[in-house]
Amino acid sequence: MSPKIDPNALPSQPRRAASIETWDDEFEVVVVGFGVAGGAAAIEAARAGAKTLILEQATRGGGATALSEGTIYFGGGTRVQNATGFEDSYENMLAHVRAAAGPTADPEKVRLYCEQSLEHFAFFESIGVEFKDTFFADKVIFPPTDDCLIYSGNEEAWPFSQEAKPVPRGHKPKKQGSAGAYIIEQMIDAATKLGVLIRNETRVRTLVRDDTGRVVGVVTKHEGRESAIRATRGVILTTGGFIMNRAMVEHFAPDLAKCRYPIGSDGCDGSGIRMGMGVGGAAVNMHEGLMTTAFFPPVTHIKGLLVSAQGQRFINEDCYHGRVTDAIAQKADGRAYLIVDDTLYGQSIVPYALAGVEETIEDLEKSLGIPEGQLVHTVASYNRAAERGEDPVFHKAGKYVTPLVHPPFAALDLSVDKSVWATFTLGGLDTQATGEVLTVDGQVVPGLYAAGRASAGLTRSGRYYASGMSIGGGSFFGRQAGKAAAKAAKVD
Amino acid sequence: MSPKIDPNALPSQPRRAASIETWDDEFEVVVVGFGVAGGAAAIEAARAGAKTLILEQATRGGGATALSEGTIYFGGGTRVQNATGFEDSYENMLAHVRAAAGPTADPEKVRLYCEQSLEHFAFFESIGVEFKDTFFADKVIFPPTDDCLIYSGNEEAWPFSQEAKPVPRGHKPKKQGSAGAYIIEQMIDAATKLGVLIRNETRVRTLVRDDTGRVVGVVTKHEGRESAIRATRGVILTTGGFIMNRAMVEHFAPDLAKCRYPIGSDGCDGSGIRMGMGVGGAAVNMHEGLMTTAFFPPVTHIKGLLVSAQGQRFINEDCYHGRVTDAIAQKADGRAYLIVDDTLYGQSIVPYALAGVEETIEDLEKSLGIPEGQLVHTVASYNRAAERGEDPVFHKAGKYVTPLVHPPFAALDLSVDKSVWATFTLGGLDTQATGEVLTVDGQVVPGLYAAGRASAGLTRSGRYYASGMSIGGGSFFGRQAGKAAAKAAKVD
Repeated sequence: MSPKIDPNALPSQPRRAASIETWDDEFEVVVVGFGVAGGAAAIEAARAGAKTLILEQATRGGGATALSEGTIYFGGGTRVQNATGFEDSYENMLAHVRAAAGPTADPEKVRLYCEQSLEHFAFFESIGVEFKDTFFADKVIFPPTDDCLIYSGNEEAWPFSQEAKPVPRGHKPKKQGSAGAYIIEQMIDAATKLGVLIRNETRVRTLVRDDTGRVVGVVTKHEGRESAIRATRGVILTTGGFIMNRAMVEHFAPDLAKCRYPIGSDGCDGSGIRMGMGVGGAAVNMHEGLMTTAFFPPVTHIKGLLVSAQGQRFINEDCYHGRVTDAIAQKADGRAYLIVDDTLYGQSIVPYALAGVEETIEDLEKSLGIPEGQLVHTVASYNRAAERGEDPVFHKAGKYVTPLVHPPFAALDLSVDKSVWATFTLGGLDTQATGEVLTVDGQVVPGLYAAGRASAGLTRSGRYYASGMSIGGGSFFGRQAGKAAAKAAKVD
Repeated sequence: MSPKIDPNALPSQPRRAASIETWDDEFEVVVVGFGVAGGAAAIEAARAGAKTLILEQATRGGGATALSEGTIYFGGGTRVQNATGFEDSYENMLAHVRAAAGPTADPEKVRLYCEQSLEHFAFFESIGVEFKDTFFADKVIFPPTDDCLIYSGNEEAWPFSQEAKPVPRGHKPKKQGSAGAYIIEQMIDAATKLGVLIRNETRVRTLVRDDTGRVVGVVTKHEGRESAIRATRGVILTTGGFIMNRAMVEHFAPDLAKCRYPIGSDGCDGSGIRMGMGVGGAAVNMHEGLMTTAFFPPVTHIKGLLVSAQGQRFINEDCYHGRVTDAIAQKADGRAYLIVDDTLYGQSIVPYALAGVEETIEDLEKSLGIPEGQLVHTVASYNRAAERGEDPVFHKAGKYVTPLVHPPFAALDLSVDKSVWATFTLGGLDTQATGEVLTVDGQVVPGLYAAGRASAGLTRSGRYYASGMSIGGGSFFGRQAGKAAAKAAKVD
């Protein structure tokens, strides 16, 4: 054992099938973890006729999805898009997602996800998830109402606004405020009706592998007792990411370790990734994650100016908040202020430290310790173009461009060490679009599938993320895994 | 086989020892690749009494080192530092390297490297490499003379200048201009005198592994004929990085694929990394590399202003050129200009495209398409502080700060798609400081060692690199691998 790696960051070893004297139970498909990916996988496996079990370590299904606002990224002309007057198409969605998901996204997953988006919307309707035919126009993290459609990514933000016609694609189910738990409740109902067996408070300790290398089951622990459960067609790991596993975060994604607030449930402990690695699955993209400091709403904050410690702007403030935060990290070395005037200042979801409040920009510059003249220039030059509604330097959309002229002026501290930066991981097991887990050799690990944050998904970096991609991608590729496992060759 | 991964990026599978009918040859230590790491490994293995073979696929040893300028990073009070009036210590070197090698460096390797730097200097002297007791004061990529000591990293650059007393640590051997080939010639002589057998034009095709999992030899090809060579104590992979393997670069390090000019020899094809992965070695840090566009010398260019497409500065121009280039990539989205006035303009090593030459900064701003007033502000505000020899915004050292006031003004295009960006990889096999290769489980792969660019070394990102770290780290950890392999338990 190397002293270099904390044991909690290491792969967990499988048990040999030959060491299992008797199987306590047998299913065709065993899904590990009941978040949105696990629920979707189980529903599709059951619909395909497979005898299916979901194992969930918490008292009830939910995972990170149940704690989230529940936005799902759909497009290509959904019922809601059409009803609210937005014209989208497969081609337009693909053009946007290709650009917005960035150069490290999996092109095959992106293509499939866009191609089958309408069918995926129908899947959610089929399990009873309702969407209201309304558009919530304000740029928000999510609608506080039961409204549906929002711009949840970078569609309207430069340069993406130039590459495809901007339309909103974030769909929040018809539920006041957060809707993640509602989605999961529908999934629990649907899975139960389909005959899926759900076992809560059951932790999966290891995978079981036979001597041919095929994954053929799991060993669980429930109320202190171990059980060996056979999976004759496949095991699907939908255990979430690893943001709650400090050893893994420090080992694989040290940049994320700086963020104070992990986004996820207790289950996001990397257990599935570690089990997958233990049977030879490749863990990829492990250094990446989403980081975000949600400086809006209020929407007026988007009209503020985000500046570095040098008093310079470095990105259009109307980008997706994850992209803005990535820019603070990469371009401003983790230190930035949001400059607002009296008319723009408002209460954010999270309380921001006020780094300074002054009657003039000159005084604010001084109190922030910004080199003389830099903030004064930034604001003055912004204000001059803003009189015409333009931002020729960073191309913020005209509707967010207004001169900052009403004292007092305030600086909200968005720095990584002063503000609430929330984060989750975007690395995991390498998978085919079918969910089949791949080794570092590019071979399929027989009998093993993964989806959701336990896998490396659609988008692979915070700079290229959009709200709705996690629940959207997790459920979509969870469904593919469920279908593929249900029709896999049965072990004898 | 997955369609996702190009076969040339995949691990290469070992041969089973049981399949080898007769071994054509037997050595205690077999070193694969004769660059500086391989030479150092072989010399130490032979000094420790091991019967040692080096296999080199080219017609003669050399690798990337022979093509390089030959700078080696030493400190802690070398003879040359002392003779030229620079007071360094282990503590001061460690303080600098810890900061300058960045948060992802291997702390144990950094500590050992600093602790034993004087002994490592003595090693090079012991094999006949000479260093002149002179300091070359100009900030250059390397001295064009036979002078020795230079500032080869970020020692004098803010913020590193604040964390340790700046002293130069780049040592170039006593040789006019480039000295890399000279280092290798001394190594070939020293290894030969020690009885190391060197076989050139011999390609290693696979590792050989026995049924206990220990690496026990290699299969080579020479003049069309295969040979099986047994290694009773260990195989050391010193095959270099993978910048010449396009499939690996695109798969593992897509950012580097944008750079036009690969730094390395033909042998930097990733073959050792792929063989190591094939026996379970973990490949880590594979997405990282050094990228550099060497805009100086002339030293006057450092007095210029590096600006983004928005006309803003984003880094002190006197940083190490790799750090400056990383900043262009990360902070300026790959697009930047070096602004100089008539007194600063000079010929660089590489020819730069002139993006514009104008009599006024206003006109230059216009011809570059920079938003109105931005470059004018940047230059005017820089010039005001430069009158006092200060750069309060990005803290360039006073000796490089001078107002830009002599027309005409020129903009050299340093953008990734317009300029010569050179690059090499910084990912490879995970190793202990002993050179032992680790699996993803943190276990040692018995019988296998790696050093140099085939391993993930001292520094792990271009932002935190310094000239002399590759030859310095490769030779230092090559030596450790040679010593460790020579004293490893012998297979029967």
